[in-house]
This record gives sequence, C-alpha cells and structure tokens, in this order.
Amino acid sequence: MFKHSITSIFISFILSFICAFHLHANALSEGELAQIKRLKKTALNSDLSYQLVESLTTEVGHRLMGSEGDKKAIKWATLKMKELGFDKVWTEDVTGPKWTRGEATGRIISPFPQPVVVIALGGSVGTGKAGITAPVEHFKTLADLKKAPKGSLTGKIAFVSYQMKRHIAGNDYGTAVGTRVDGASVAAEKGAVALIMRSVGTDNNRSAHTGSMRYDDVAKKIPAAALSNPDADLLVNQFSRGKPVNFYLKITSNNPKGETVKSANVIGEITGSEFPDEIVAIGAHLDSWDVGTGAIDDGLGVAMVLASAHNIAQLPTRPKKTLRVILFAAEEVGLLGAKAYVKQHKDNMTHHVIGAEWDFGLGRIYKMTPGVGASSLNAIRELAQILAPMGVALAPMNNARAQSDMSLLSDAGMPSVNFSPDGSKYFDYHHTENDTFDKIDPQDLKQNTAVYTVFSYFATQSTINFRE
Amino acid sequence: MFKHSITSIFISFILSFICAFHLHANALSEGELAQIKRLKKTALNSDLSYQLVESLTTEVGHRLMGSEGDKKAIKWATLKMKELGFDKVWTEDVTGPKWTRGEATGRIISPFPQPVVVIALGGSVGTGKAGITAPVEHFKTLADLKKAPKGSLTGKIAFVSYQMKRHIAGNDYGTAVGTRVDGASVAAEKGAVALIMRSVGTDNNRSAHTGSMRYDDVAKKIPAAALSNPDADLLVNQFSRGKPVNFYLKITSNNPKGETVKSANVIGEITGSEFPDEIVAIGAHLDSWDVGTGAIDDGLGVAMVLASAHNIAQLPTRPKKTLRVILFAAEEVGLLGAKAYVKQHKDNMTHHVIGAEWDFGLGRIYKMTPGVGASSLNAIRELAQILAPMGVALAPMNNARAQSDMSLLSDAGMPSVNFSPDGSKYFDYHHTENDTFDKIDPQDLKQNTAVYTVFSYFATQSTINFRE
Repeated sequence: MFKHSITSIFISFILSFICAFHLHANALSEGELAQIKRLKKTALNSDLSYQLVESLTTEVGHRLMGSEGDKKAIKWATLKMKELGFDKVWTEDVTGPKWTRGEATGRIISPFPQPVVVIALGGSVGTGKAGITAPVEHFKTLADLKKAPKGSLTGKIAFVSYQMKRHIAGNDYGTAVGTRVDGASVAAEKGAVALIMRSVGTDNNRSAHTGSMRYDDVAKKIPAAALSNPDADLLVNQFSRGKPVNFYLKITSNNPKGETVKSANVIGEITGSEFPDEIVAIGAHLDSWDVGTGAIDDGLGVAMVLASAHNIAQLPTRPKKTLRVILFAAEEVGLLGAKAYVKQHKDNMTHHVIGAEWDFGLGRIYKMTPGVGASSLNAIRELAQILAPMGVALAPMNNARAQSDMSLLSDAGMPSVNFSPDGSKYFDYHHTENDTFDKIDPQDLKQNTAVYTVFSYFATQSTINFRE
Repeated sequence: MFKHSITSIFISFILSFICAFHLHANALSEGELAQIKRLKKTALNSDLSYQLVESLTTEVGHRLMGSEGDKKAIKWATLKMKELGFDKVWTEDVTGPKWTRGEATGRIISPFPQPVVVIALGGSVGTGKAGITAPVEHFKTLADLKKAPKGSLTGKIAFVSYQMKRHIAGNDYGTAVGTRVDGASVAAEKGAVALIMRSVGTDNNRSAHTGSMRYDDVAKKIPAAALSNPDADLLVNQFSRGKPVNFYLKITSNNPKGETVKSANVIGEITGSEFPDEIVAIGAHLDSWDVGTGAIDDGLGVAMVLASAHNIAQLPTRPKKTLRVILFAAEEVGLLGAKAYVKQHKDNMTHHVIGAEWDFGLGRIYKMTPGVGASSLNAIRELAQILAPMGVALAPMNNARAQSDMSLLSDAGMPSVNFSPDGSKYFDYHHTENDTFDKIDPQDLKQNTAVYTVFSYFATQSTINFRE
C-alpha cells in the first residue's frame, strides 16, 4: 500500500513534469534564436571589453570611493556609455564616510629584526605617528582568538595566521575573511592594542591584501593590518623558535569623525521597444580599492557589462524590455552604492525582472545558477542550452542570489542568474597592488562578455516572468 | 688515395679513442662508488639544506654588503660551519664602496596621473629630496637608446621598455641586463637627467627588480630606477595615446664619496686526509640585495654547499683532498668577495683542483658542463653516470666557466663543473622583495644538494688531475 502510493506519486510527478515541459512556450522564437547566435559570434570576435578595461586602468587607475580616481571613473563611465550607444545615461549620488589609507609600516623587532610588508585594512584607525611596539600573541584562527580570555591580550598585538586555501569557487574566502572583518574588535575585547593577520589571499607574493573591516559598537577601535603571505610565514617561523616576538606597526590611516565623501552610481539604459519599464539589470562595481588599478576587481566586470550592452545597442532593433547597466559606487567600503540604489528605486523594484552582476574576477565562466520562479525554469534551461557549447553548465539548484551589490536587489525580490567563473586565481590578486591589467586573459574575457551578451539579449527579448 | 688516407686517419682516430678509454684508470674504486651511492641516498633523504636556508632567511634576512644583515650573516655562517663539523673555519676581509638604498618613489604625472612601483638600481645616485619631474622619451631597447642623437634627451628621462623573455637557461638575461648595467651612462651621454627601465624579470608581479649598474668615467652620473613589469606596461599603454608623458622620480640613494664598508668571505674546510693542500672548492655568495630575504639569491646556494660539506664531514673518514666551502662576500655589488679571494690566494690558485658555484636559484639541475683538461673528461663521464639517474645530462661541450664568483677562479685557471638548473622561474623573483623562503621547493633543493654532495665526494676522493 505504502509502496503503491509512492509509485503513484512518482508517476504523477513525472507526468506533470513532462506536461509542464511540453505546454511551456519557448522563451525565444526561431528568429530570436538565430539573432542570439549572431550576437554570440559578434561578442566572441570583439575585444571591446578588453579595450574598455585597458582604458579604465590606463586612464583612471584605482578609484577608492571619494578619491580623485573615483571622480574620474564616474566621468569615464558616463562618457563611455554615451559613446557606446546607450539611450539614457545618468548618475545617482552615494554618500559614505571618509577614510584615507596613509602609509603602513611593519617590522619584527625581536627575536630577529626584519621588515615586513603590511597594509592597513580598509576602515582601520591609525596607530598615531609614533606607531605601536608591542609583544605579539599568535593565534592560528579567529576561533582561537575568540577563545582567549578577556584581558589576556592587554598591551599586546594579536596575530592570526590562518591561510586561505585555493578553490575554484573561492569557498575558503568565507572562513578566511572573518578575521579581516571582525578580528580587530574581537582582539580589542581581549585587551589587544592592534590586530595583524595573514592576508586573505592564495598567492605567495609580497603584496598584502587589504579589504573592508568593521568595528563593533562595544570594543575599542584598534588598528588592523594584513601581512603578505611570505611575511606571515616569516613571522610564524620566528614564533617557532619559542622566543618572545615583538612587533612594530605604524598605520597613518585616518577616519575623520563625521566627515563624508560623495560618489555616484553610474546608470545607463538601452530602452526596451515594447516594455520599456521592465528592467533587466546587469552590473558591476565602478569603485576599487586604492591599490593596483582595479583591473580584476572590478574593472573587468565594468567592461563586460558595458560591452554587452553595446552589443545589444548595435542590433537593428531594440529588444522588448529595457537593459539597464548599473555601475555601482562604493562596493568595497560596504555596498553603499547598492544600498543607495535599492533605497532610491524601492518603489520600482518589482519592475526589475531579472539581474546579474559580475564581481568575481578573471576566470572563465563554467556554471550558471538561477534564482527564479519555478515556472520560468524551463526558460532558464533554454538559455543554458545556448550557453552549453561555451562550457557553461546549468547548476541543479534554483537558489541563486546575485553577486555582490546585486545581492541586495535579490534580497528585494529581483530574480537573478549567477554566472560562476573559475575563481582559482582570483584571490592571488584580490585587493592587492597586483590587481593590474596584465592579469587579464583576453580570451577568457571575450568568452565571459559573450555569456553576458547572450544573457542580456535573452532576458530583454523574452516575455517570461522570471518571478513565477 | 685521398679517400684511403682519410679512412686511415679516421680509423686511427677511433682506435686511439678506444685505447684512451680503455687505458684510462677509473676515477673511483668499487668501494668508493658504493660510498658515493650511500652519500647520494643520505643527501636525498636529508632536509638539512632546507633547514639551513630557513634559518638564514628567518634569523638574518637580507644582507647587503656592509649592512647589519651582512654582519649577522657572517656570524651565522661561521657558527653554522663549526656546528656542521668543518675542520677549519675562517673569514677574509673584503672592502667595498658604501651605498645606501633610501626610498624610491615614481609617478606618472601626465597624461594620466598614476603611482608606479619603482626601485633604485644598485649603485645609483639619488635624485635629491625634491625628485625630478621631466618629460619621458620611450625606447624599446638599449640599442634604440644608443642610436638617439647626442643632446636629444636634454632635460628628459629616458625609458627603456625591453621585456625579458622566459628561458630555461635564463638566456635572455644577457640582452635585458645591458640596460640595467650601462643604460644610465648611455642616457646621460644623450643629455638625459634620469633613466627608468622595465625590470629585468619575467614575472607579472608589482615588485620591481634591482641589481647592479655602473657609471662610465665620461658621462654624468644620473639616477637610475626599474619599474615593475605591470608598471612598465602601464607606462607603455599611456605612451600609446600619443600624448606627452611626464614622470616624477625620487630616489634617496646615497653613495658617500670615498666611504667604504667592510664585509668578509667566510671559508670553511673539510681537510683532506692524503692531499690536504689540494683544494676542491664549492661556493655560493652570502650577501644578497637588500630586498626580500635573499632566499633564492643565494641563501639556497649557501645552504646547499654547507649541507654538502656536512654530508662529507659525516663520513667515517676524510676524503683524500680538501673540500673548501667559500661563501663569497659582496657578489651582488660587483664580485668584490671573489676579487679579494683571487688576490689573496693567487699564489695558491694552482692548488684549486676543481670547483663549482651555485648562484642560479631554485630549479632542478638537469645538465652538467665540464671545463676541464681533455684527459680528465673520462673521469667527468664517470661522474655523469652517477648523476644520470637524477636527470642530470652531460653537456657535449667542455668549455664551462664556473658560475658567478667562481668565474674569476676559472679565469685564474681552476677547472670547474657547471651544474645547470631549470632557471625558468628564477627571474620571476631575482632581486625583488619576492625572493623569500616560500619560493623554494624542498624536493628540488634536496636533489640539488645531493648533486653537490656527490660532486664534492667525487672530486675530493679521486686523484684525477682535472687540469690535464
């Protein structure tokens, strides 16, 4: 009985699945499918995105929120959108707290004096001009630091040496980044006067990785810096001698109280011919850390979405829905551009029919994961069939939240597709001086731009409701 | 007749070759061959050289001639030799000119202002505290710079962008390094106020490569600096816009006139049991540039020759001839230690029966090239047979000059064997901040130490005259 009932359910499930599949209207017509193939070919033969990121890194360089570079980047992006054939281009103001990096100096004082390469974490307070010299306590993980008794680090510098592991999807970032984000407040709670940590990175370069950190409301704000991987090794090796370790840290970062800086989201549209109010959003963030030239994070993403929109703009007719390119401000310092966007467009969020961001660097896309209504999954399968010859597999899940800034639009109800690149090398360069143009493989960038072009056409031309 | 005569000559040549081969006494006895096999096994199972370079890089760090690090390194090496069972240990003074690096700052002023990573070339004069701001003239090669008319660079900075190519034997170093060594004087002769150049390196890291340069006696001494490869790319890309390029360079290097610094060659011996005055010399240089920790250049060589000598010292009996380890001072700043050694030992040079240096970094040895008398080539072939299972091929030439410092001993008549490692990655790290312990592959180091151990035993135990 039980067995029979299970079988019945199974058969009816299969039948309903088959019916659903057959009853489902195709998302694109034959003519549109032919168009999308031509578009794919165009994108695969174009080096526009490569030229765009070359332009951004050569003519602008890095662009921390509120910096001269940031201001230039906003002008650059506005101009490029106009040149690339966008129908509308505008900016929306974003405001955030002021922070300047200053200089960072690190030195092992004992047992064996040696200079080390350090970088201030983004948002860290400074040490004062004299710097801090203090004994160092070594913890292998943030969890170990959390276990230290209160007061046990009074007058000391806490050092966390956890080493991030390489992974195609950057899976270990979540573990490693905890120290960067919360480590300073955890250390301060135990009495520490500063936090130093191994960089969140998978490389062996003597470039330290910066990135945002935050202070909780309770603990004292103490300076926080990252050591390059080779320097973290050196410090660990010095600890292995069993002698007291003393360290000098100087950070001249500055967070002037209450002062703010301005930036802007740069937004451009290819206006839809039938449903101009229905928005397909593709995005990347325009800001970068103030090291390197922000080529990988996220100049390349900016270039990809600009080139994809240009490819759509070059078609003989506008697609049915509007393609909106959002170049977010101030992602690095806390998704401030995305927060401002969601606030500004809250009454219009239901018109954001689907979106995708690019903020995971330089590898080739190998997987797509939808985050759409169950009824529109068949349309996503059609898209997957178009992309399959490019090595893009459809993930079996339907739970995607868009990357980075657009995760906030996902949270506000926007369906999305998440394209996953090979991220094995991303954390070699992420948030370092080494994030420069030369790291980009032009072929991978072409392929990824083609994927975004295809997605953009597919989503703007189909009449599927991705919420259902 | 003519044909017959050629055949006769050929036959007698073959016969004489066969006779020579058969008449030749083996360099090592059966017992010695068994010993050398045990030694090889010992070396391949030991991580002593890895531990030694860990110790040098962790406890001393970088060691520019005359620096605190250099002084510490001399003490470190002396102590290690004693601990490792050397029979005699001593130092020999070396004097050289004083040079301090100071700080280096570079910035593209126009057309698109961006900071760049620069490093002063070793020996460069400073710019003065205010630095130099000047228009830049771009040359693709040193040859192009040489072709510039006299006076054509008056008031300008010369930029040479030649990019070194990767090669297993570092073949392109010779081409690339010309700019570093002579570029400043060539540029000065044309009126230039400074030289900037692409680093002599094969990496894409934002670490610039230093290295020695020299001024000729005629041209004005102008400051000289290297840009990292990504920064040289950036500058080339800015030039591609066809707009005037202006650059700011500040170097606070200092060459106080007439001031000298002291260093020392550190020398140790395993004294021969039958021919103590016959010296087999193995060496490396103890100094390093004042960036990185001098792990690859040449901490690893120091460790290899120390460990090899230790392996010999651990045998139940001393070998017949003396094994001398020479850790040369001041290689980087112009082979000053080697020059001092050759001067000091000029009357004893004929007793240096054979030698080998290690100063080509981190790859696995794949080739050996002799530089010995023709009669001793058969002995070298025996050595090659022992090393062949480790992937070391015997080069068909017999023209080796020892590496680096010991090239001066070769010039003074010492026979040598040159062991060639895979140098493909060497110039990724050479003379940069990135020359750190983590770059060393412990297995490659074991293998190379085993090769040097085998060579050391072979050369000290055989009675072959390698000059003949």
